[in-house]
Amino acid sequence: MTTRSSAEALFAGNRTTLAGYQPQHFGWSVEGRVATITLNRPERKNPLTFESYAELRDLFRQLAYATDIKTVVLHGAGENFCSGGDVHDIIAPLIDLPMPELLMFTRMTGDLVKAMRHCPQPIIAAVDGVCAGAGAILAMASDMRYATSRSKLAFLFTRVGLAGCDMGACAILPRIIGQGRAAELLYTGRSASGDEGHAWGFYNRLCDPETLLAEAQKLAADLAAGPTFAHGITKKMLHQEWTMSIDEAIESEAQAQAICMATRDFGRAYEAFAAKSRPVFQGD
Amino acid sequence: MTTRSSAEALFAGNRTTLAGYQPQHFGWSVEGRVATITLNRPERKNPLTFESYAELRDLFRQLAYATDIKTVVLHGAGENFCSGGDVHDIIAPLIDLPMPELLMFTRMTGDLVKAMRHCPQPIIAAVDGVCAGAGAILAMASDMRYATSRSKLAFLFTRVGLAGCDMGACAILPRIIGQGRAAELLYTGRSASGDEGHAWGFYNRLCDPETLLAEAQKLAADLAAGPTFAHGITKKMLHQEWTMSIDEAIESEAQAQAICMATRDFGRAYEAFAAKSRPVFQGD
Amino acid sequence: MTTRSSAEALFAGNRTTLAGYQPQHFGWSVEGRVATITLNRPERKNPLTFESYAELRDLFRQLAYATDIKTVVLHGAGENFCSGGDVHDIIAPLIDLPMPELLMFTRMTGDLVKAMRHCPQPIIAAVDGVCAGAGAILAMASDMRYATSRSKLAFLFTRVGLAGCDMGACAILPRIIGQGRAAELLYTGRSASGDEGHAWGFYNRLCDPETLLAEAQKLAADLAAGPTFAHGITKKMLHQEWTMSIDEAIESEAQAQAICMATRDFGRAYEAFAAKSRPVFQGD
Repeated sequence: MTTRSSAEALFAGNRTTLAGYQPQHFGWSVEGRVATITLNRPERKNPLTFESYAELRDLFRQLAYATDIKTVVLHGAGENFCSGGDVHDIIAPLIDLPMPELLMFTRMTGDLVKAMRHCPQPIIAAVDGVCAGAGAILAMASDMRYATSRSKLAFLFTRVGLAGCDMGACAILPRIIGQGRAAELLYTGRSASGDEGHAWGFYNRLCDPETLLAEAQKLAADLAAGPTFAHGITKKMLHQEWTMSIDEAIESEAQAQAICMATRDFGRAYEAFAAKSRPVFQGD
Repeated sequence: MTTRSSAEALFAGNRTTLAGYQPQHFGWSVEGRVATITLNRPERKNPLTFESYAELRDLFRQLAYATDIKTVVLHGAGENFCSGGDVHDIIAPLIDLPMPELLMFTRMTGDLVKAMRHCPQPIIAAVDGVCAGAGAILAMASDMRYATSRSKLAFLFTRVGLAGCDMGACAILPRIIGQGRAAELLYTGRSASGDEGHAWGFYNRLCDPETLLAEAQKLAADLAAGPTFAHGITKKMLHQEWTMSIDEAIESEAQAQAICMATRDFGRAYEAFAAKSRPVFQGD
Repeated sequence: MTTRSSAEALFAGNRTTLAGYQPQHFGWSVEGRVATITLNRPERKNPLTFESYAELRDLFRQLAYATDIKTVVLHGAGENFCSGGDVHDIIAPLIDLPMPELLMFTRMTGDLVKAMRHCPQPIIAAVDGVCAGAGAILAMASDMRYATSRSKLAFLFTRVGLAGCDMGACAILPRIIGQGRAAELLYTGRSASGDEGHAWGFYNRLCDPETLLAEAQKLAADLAAGPTFAHGITKKMLHQEWTMSIDEAIESEAQAQAICMATRDFGRAYEAFAAKSRPVFQGD
């Protein structure tokens, strides 16, 4: 017989809290149910290293089980978002690695994007200044993006002799900004301005540098106060329906939305409406 | 031996006329070969009910067999398009329904979108004022959209505690306006203005409120005067190729276009060209 | 034992040079490693014929093996890009052809698009004036597009009684400009202006008519001076990931980028960086 205590055993392996998490290679702060990740080597425009890639991947995997964090903001310290893979710490060691280890590296970076897409928390990137290479990928792999007009988005891979197909860019970028614009950015490596990124739908909003982080955190807090279980379903279905036919997608959404109609948050919304008050969502 | 009269038996089950159709839960008028559907409870901004959902689904299924209707215009009475599922008539009864009946409901609404995508007639939504929730879905599920600058598009599901994955939104909306903008609308439920909807490619044209319906009906009449069999093939292939590889899509189009080259309308177009006159298409 | 000389046998069937190529039905010129194709019947706005379709298809298939050509520019002589299939030379003979021959024709035109997508060279269309019917398709099937504000893009098929599903248009055009705009162009056959095409992401840049070709050739030369093996991988992956799930695409990119990390161009880029000089890529 299934009892509440045997259900607790299920929860044990699938629930954790991350408010007290202490990363080694980037900043982490929690306000309410919103976590903010800060790429924090501003003197080098916040590059990624082997260590920060792996730690970010592990964190986003843990977020799938975190009960206390409902949305994530990703930004960079100083006036830049992220300059991508560090030339000294990453590119230099990659030269002349044997193939299995090259693949180990590209799979690690890809696993970071997979983890970002598989955790249920919506991720909001707050992009100021340089947003280049793997940094551009982190912004692309987020759910929404706020930026400044002085931001510079560049998929630089071609400049270091590589292809544009890095961490999912050839699949994901065209669906955000269109196939033609994505092709140009990936073939040429040129910078797109904040205005371009906004006009193209890459950025959801342009903010002043002074208020960028606060505006992103405000959006994150608003979502964290919403029906967070349903947000996780929205995120999962945006992922899941990527390659479904329209008919399959409609059936999948019928099932997914029926699940949401069985949540208490759906009842709470109706009760609040009937009482002419604002619903207080609980995420269950 | 197949004879014309045995072919008539085939046609019997696959041909109908709808000019005289008399719906119970919305308006229906036919001018030439253009049908106009009017959501007509303007005092409540034209909400949908269980009955109107089912009747719309059945109508669009019948349109697959209608020989007299070549295009459809969908609009709302008064100064709004549609406010979505009625809170009293739909949301209230859904609370606490058993799961099989919740799924019965979400499948019914999904079947409306499937029926809109599977009938051969191009559907043009004329959107003024509120276009929210399931109303936003009806606009999204149309082939083209005209709107006014005062229109307000909102995928409200999150506001009632539900997910953005309703009636195909997580699959279809990103292909119309891009993945980033779609994510924002679906996670936040915020309203998009007419100008935003136009800039993003959701609306094909912004019109004055006074001329909106007439302009949509003019487009519908122009298409109805065109090669309507070919239009139905265009619609089918836009649906069909949604998840095909490029190579598969090209072969499918080679077959589909060869079918169109065997129609009389193709010959009529050439004869008109040679005679320096305008072709009169017949849809066969 | 595999020796260099046995490898040469492999190369023999997979390497060719095209600098000296002499087409019958269009112009061809090579400057450095950039080839320019000129549709050159300006008195009729550069229509396509059975012969030019077949010759273009064969050329793009040969480009897959060309070692001397790294990018391709496609443009039209005079002040127009291409008016599409010639009414006299193509449409007239198609009327009343038996079905197998109609399909032979639509497969030939589709094979041209497949060949354009399968050769490794990025293709840049330079679009001035009329860009209609199959001409619009050639622009669409290119990787990037520069145009002038006076360009007129029209998917005219509906005007000759056909469907919009020609040579991949129902699959490819929506991914470039969005599903709603693509539907309008394909159902109505209306012209889109240069400004519209640019705002929608169909064109990557608007140029003056006087400098259009030179700007397209400049972009082509810049790419030809880049890591051309990696460009070919970028092109292949943009094609290949069209219908992959996000997770599959990320694994595919991990493999594809690991291949690029094993090229000498990747090492050259790092060495140039370390020496504070510009890399000289060799495409191997």
